[in-house]
Amino acid sequence: MAAVLEQIGQAVNPAGVGSVRTAVAGVSGYAGAELARLLLAHPRLQQEAPLFLGRMDASSSAGAQSLYEMHPQLARHDGARSPEVVPFTWEQLQDRGTEVLFLALPHEQSREWVPEAVARGMRVIDLSGAWRLHDPANEAVYRLHDADRDKAASLQVGAVYGCPELHRSAIESATLVANPGCYATSIILALAPLIQAVLLDLDRGIIADAKSGVSGAGKAPTPKTHFMYAADNLSAYGVFGHRHTGELLEQLGLTADQIQFTPHLLPIPRGILSTIYARLAQPVAIAEIERVLRSFYTDSPMVRVRRAGDLPQIAHVARTNYCDIGFEVSPDGKRLVLVSCLDNLLKGAAGQAVQNLNVMCGWSESEGLL
Amino acid sequence: MAAVLEQIGQAVNPAGVGSVRTAVAGVSGYAGAELARLLLAHPRLQQEAPLFLGRMDASSSAGAQSLYEMHPQLARHDGARSPEVVPFTWEQLQDRGTEVLFLALPHEQSREWVPEAVARGMRVIDLSGAWRLHDPANEAVYRLHDADRDKAASLQVGAVYGCPELHRSAIESATLVANPGCYATSIILALAPLIQAVLLDLDRGIIADAKSGVSGAGKAPTPKTHFMYAADNLSAYGVFGHRHTGELLEQLGLTADQIQFTPHLLPIPRGILSTIYARLAQPVAIAEIERVLRSFYTDSPMVRVRRAGDLPQIAHVARTNYCDIGFEVSPDGKRLVLVSCLDNLLKGAAGQAVQNLNVMCGWSESEGLL
Amino acid sequence: MAAVLEQIGQAVNPAGVGSVRTAVAGVSGYAGAELARLLLAHPRLQQEAPLFLGRMDASSSAGAQSLYEMHPQLARHDGARSPEVVPFTWEQLQDRGTEVLFLALPHEQSREWVPEAVARGMRVIDLSGAWRLHDPANEAVYRLHDADRDKAASLQVGAVYGCPELHRSAIESATLVANPGCYATSIILALAPLIQAVLLDLDRGIIADAKSGVSGAGKAPTPKTHFMYAADNLSAYGVFGHRHTGELLEQLGLTADQIQFTPHLLPIPRGILSTIYARLAQPVAIAEIERVLRSFYTDSPMVRVRRAGDLPQIAHVARTNYCDIGFEVSPDGKRLVLVSCLDNLLKGAAGQAVQNLNVMCGWSESEGLL
Amino acid sequence: MAAVLEQIGQAVNPAGVGSVRTAVAGVSGYAGAELARLLLAHPRLQQEAPLFLGRMDASSSAGAQSLYEMHPQLARHDGARSPEVVPFTWEQLQDRGTEVLFLALPHEQSREWVPEAVARGMRVIDLSGAWRLHDPANEAVYRLHDADRDKAASLQVGAVYGCPELHRSAIESATLVANPGCYATSIILALAPLIQAVLLDLDRGIIADAKSGVSGAGKAPTPKTHFMYAADNLSAYGVFGHRHTGELLEQLGLTADQIQFTPHLLPIPRGILSTIYARLAQPVAIAEIERVLRSFYTDSPMVRVRRAGDLPQIAHVARTNYCDIGFEVSPDGKRLVLVSCLDNLLKGAAGQAVQNLNVMCGWSESEGLL
Repeated sequence: MAAVLEQIGQAVNPAGVGSVRTAVAGVSGYAGAELARLLLAHPRLQQEAPLFLGRMDASSSAGAQSLYEMHPQLARHDGARSPEVVPFTWEQLQDRGTEVLFLALPHEQSREWVPEAVARGMRVIDLSGAWRLHDPANEAVYRLHDADRDKAASLQVGAVYGCPELHRSAIESATLVANPGCYATSIILALAPLIQAVLLDLDRGIIADAKSGVSGAGKAPTPKTHFMYAADNLSAYGVFGHRHTGELLEQLGLTADQIQFTPHLLPIPRGILSTIYARLAQPVAIAEIERVLRSFYTDSPMVRVRRAGDLPQIAHVARTNYCDIGFEVSPDGKRLVLVSCLDNLLKGAAGQAVQNLNVMCGWSESEGLL
Repeated sequence: MAAVLEQIGQAVNPAGVGSVRTAVAGVSGYAGAELARLLLAHPRLQQEAPLFLGRMDASSSAGAQSLYEMHPQLARHDGARSPEVVPFTWEQLQDRGTEVLFLALPHEQSREWVPEAVARGMRVIDLSGAWRLHDPANEAVYRLHDADRDKAASLQVGAVYGCPELHRSAIESATLVANPGCYATSIILALAPLIQAVLLDLDRGIIADAKSGVSGAGKAPTPKTHFMYAADNLSAYGVFGHRHTGELLEQLGLTADQIQFTPHLLPIPRGILSTIYARLAQPVAIAEIERVLRSFYTDSPMVRVRRAGDLPQIAHVARTNYCDIGFEVSPDGKRLVLVSCLDNLLKGAAGQAVQNLNVMCGWSESEGLL
Repeated sequence: MAAVLEQIGQAVNPAGVGSVRTAVAGVSGYAGAELARLLLAHPRLQQEAPLFLGRMDASSSAGAQSLYEMHPQLARHDGARSPEVVPFTWEQLQDRGTEVLFLALPHEQSREWVPEAVARGMRVIDLSGAWRLHDPANEAVYRLHDADRDKAASLQVGAVYGCPELHRSAIESATLVANPGCYATSIILALAPLIQAVLLDLDRGIIADAKSGVSGAGKAPTPKTHFMYAADNLSAYGVFGHRHTGELLEQLGLTADQIQFTPHLLPIPRGILSTIYARLAQPVAIAEIERVLRSFYTDSPMVRVRRAGDLPQIAHVARTNYCDIGFEVSPDGKRLVLVSCLDNLLKGAAGQAVQNLNVMCGWSESEGLL
Repeated sequence: MAAVLEQIGQAVNPAGVGSVRTAVAGVSGYAGAELARLLLAHPRLQQEAPLFLGRMDASSSAGAQSLYEMHPQLARHDGARSPEVVPFTWEQLQDRGTEVLFLALPHEQSREWVPEAVARGMRVIDLSGAWRLHDPANEAVYRLHDADRDKAASLQVGAVYGCPELHRSAIESATLVANPGCYATSIILALAPLIQAVLLDLDRGIIADAKSGVSGAGKAPTPKTHFMYAADNLSAYGVFGHRHTGELLEQLGLTADQIQFTPHLLPIPRGILSTIYARLAQPVAIAEIERVLRSFYTDSPMVRVRRAGDLPQIAHVARTNYCDIGFEVSPDGKRLVLVSCLDNLLKGAAGQAVQNLNVMCGWSESEGLL
């Protein structure tokens, strides 16, 4: 639990009331589409729809696009009144008085735009990996090339890891929220309470064997996202080298020798199941483990702790913003298996981003998410 | 949150406002689970949750069950406060003052219970096929054995086919609404406007080649719902003999020689796509076809008409209550292909049932469905 | 049945014995991989393995690749002894004394290479659409740009449509075999016997509603082959305009007004099911329809005719070279539904190509295919 | 490596030539169908087809069934000449002079029939779990109720665990071969060479996180084999209690504390991928690990060892009899991840059974399996 909890900036809605002016850059991808869907239906944002922005690139010269044509599943009956997706410009953001900007873009792009957005007074919820890590390893992991390294470094120090279950109060007042990785969220939420309660023998090592649906690989057509590659298949990847590992270490306060994380590509559209193996530091009653988990998440509406032996499945969480956590203990009481499930596009991306918005604005944490 | 939740009425729907006391019999199946999900989140039903009833059989002696344990995906954070699923008894329904009863049960059961429910003053939305057909063929198709044939026949005469797009005003005041079949809904909604506008050459015959996900086959484990049977497969079934054919004939005013319907089992959980082939009675401008469709559905919020050549797909409607309708015309202007998509558990079952509830109560037709 | 049955060239193996020297250009795709698998295991080709050729392009400068690394599923225990995939050169083909050349390449490439291959004395089995059509529509459909139009036209006249069930004797002596399209094969094999027997009322029109797995869309990663696009989905495409339509018209002797073909993209890796709707010219005994089908295919080992009412499914033919044909007749005896299934990569591509090789060499038609 | 290698009986084909008379009891299930397919195509069994037997139960009174109707994918062109599946009787087996009997039946049935079959002089390859374990735990795991406990116990002592890669010479002369479990095969083949070479720190514990396709759950329609349960889902089951654990302990010579095995249900028809986590006893060169694996399997044609870092996937082994093994070592050289893949119906069941037949008969081990 070595997470840094710096706080900067001022809460947009300290009183927990009213609406905010939001914008989303990057609505063409899977997380972006979910974000658009959630924000358009969010009870607090009915007065003023979010501003949807495309990428600031050559293609943007084409002008505005219809959100409904981009994502036909989002359309309403009267298709003509679709929100527009406009090319990204700072002027648009400024003119609309944007208070909270969501970025669902590659991390290089985020690294370039976030300093400008913050300088212009916006609060930012960034869905990329650009700002999640606080130690310098970040630069190596994400191969960052900041225009102004000092400015970027200072922003990074103040960035809050956007896991409300761990950093709720820091998020409330944060200027820059780094929305967590999907795999990382599933593993961190399962382990944090038990590590905090000192129930695990960390030196015996933790194994997190995680499996994710294909949407986690993004919308770009590649050999590995081809239907013929993923269907009827299962493959491990990123063994000993996945980028989410750093989040696990920083957020759980572990060393690289204490946890090993292996992702797999599942032949399903969405959902993550992480099977986590740990040794108990000493014999513990099963009821005590359940109590520790429940107690940790008493005030966290988006985590559902299951009873001992009642393991969650991906189907229980798909298309919800919940993270479900279940566990079993070996008959000899020495070993623990945790199973943690979430939807990688919701609690693992867009849903958690909206949850962070709710916390930042002082609204009910699950508003627009149930 | 601009939603206004006025509460007035005591009668079911005279003023078209207020809440009603609802009950659902048969929440264990797929349509039942969707119905539970929709009703629990329905803005008009927040004062009083629906009463959930199981089957009136031996197993019901076990007493109440937790809805959340039955359907873990529906659970809220605080799992202990699950709605209960209680054994079916008329006393429970009466004590709760049930005004609208949803039945998601086999048609034989519906045929037995509906007369009793109506006699006790409830309005009924029945999701089975028991009451959909008005001509005596019903008995042959569904092999009905009514205790009181005269009473059943008179009820059947008054039953309204619950397709709001066709029978909105009759549904408003109906006592018994027969919720349409999933395949039938997709085909009827595509054809009704064009038949009404006399654009089709019915004597050349209409072919409706329909494909449905596995949830349409129900929750009972059978050889044909086994994963190994359905996965990586496609099969036609019920050729020249599917039970939904009668609904097509009655609702579209066609003879058996004028339309042929063949269903197929798709290896997906949910969704129907119907490809419908028809001959145009005479050359028609493409724009005119689109105009006829749009005009017919101007005030129908749950139908989305696509532009000519922009065909809908199952992914556009899955987990929504929309029916999407698209079309193409052959270069010689003689032939028409319609593609109609919907989610068989929503617009094809539970969603349409809630849409009917909205119409019966005078609420906005899409309330709780967007 | 207006198919042109010209014959040119000389049979490589007039006596129907011995081996031949084969080569495959284009082994990197799905059909190419299946072709490699079938040829490597073919009993007649154990003396000399096929020559595997990549594309003649920039990437070929990289030199030879291992077939096993390209397609790990084909590897043998001793991975080191993989066949090589060498860059395409005419010298290689000539040096190896190639007698039969398989081309599994884009049709533009085929159009360029086939004249050269034939000029060098090879017999060619081409899996693209380049040489399938005999009327000039070919150029429009495939946008061909031949270097020597006269030569290409004369080659095209002599090309034999490689459907052994229809053109066995022409294939025996053909120099250029145009391997049929996958959809076309499934529809032609179902209809040819009945059209030949004059059982159908062609003027009432035939509808072929076909559904194919994703491998039919090729290996290139595109938005439509992305797992997220295809999974849990079904979509129609190419309505009134699919390229295989021409094959149906030419091979079945139909006019464009007599048959309509609509393909759909199924969320499965492989397999095609075509549901075909036709009107019977006059009442026919069900047994007579079955007799006509069985009689037509008596000597065709790769077609399995099902009994009336016993419809085939994709799972029955996946990973086989069979085409399964079943049917049902309406109670009034006026309408016929045919269901035809095959594996698009085998009977619809590589398997049929090997079947053509067998016929060309005078071997048993199903050799290496059961 | 504490496996018991007793040998009893005489080799049917000591000279490694000729055919044998085989019979298969239990062809209706998935493994049975694969066994029928493999045996019907086996080069050594073309003189005399296997005898196919159904279950000895009430339904068998129906008399013989057609194998092709039972499994349409196995049919040949001339469907009328299907092999028959006859009711099980000892007379039939005796009359046909059955030399090798395959049992693909529930373990209780196997426990009842195997003593009789052996008494009648047949050699048995049993695909159930009935005879795999040598210590008394067997009775607890499989809840066995033997009619003659002493006889059963003595048979069990002589039963050979049918993993040819470990027990080739014992299988050659075995009377009763207990075909291994599918999960167990994938894990044992990955670990056996490294444990034998004393490369692993067993006291740090081994984790085997395994994932299997749905065919592993059998053909009986149950809530968990329903398409709607398995599709788009992943679930862990049998944590700390799966029946294959005993095979791992006995065959690898491990204690229950040294290895933990967790199976998961994948939404695919067939295939297993096991991700295995171990600690290296001391730093080892990556090349040495690869050398140990390759050396162990030099003469094992059905195992393919991958190069370091080149991990196998289920798609590489589906519908083959191969077990593919790959691995990666952590940068600090302390940890090892092995990935082992096979097809649960082939190398995990029917294919391995045929491999055992080949070994028992002195034929090439991969005959009929490539």
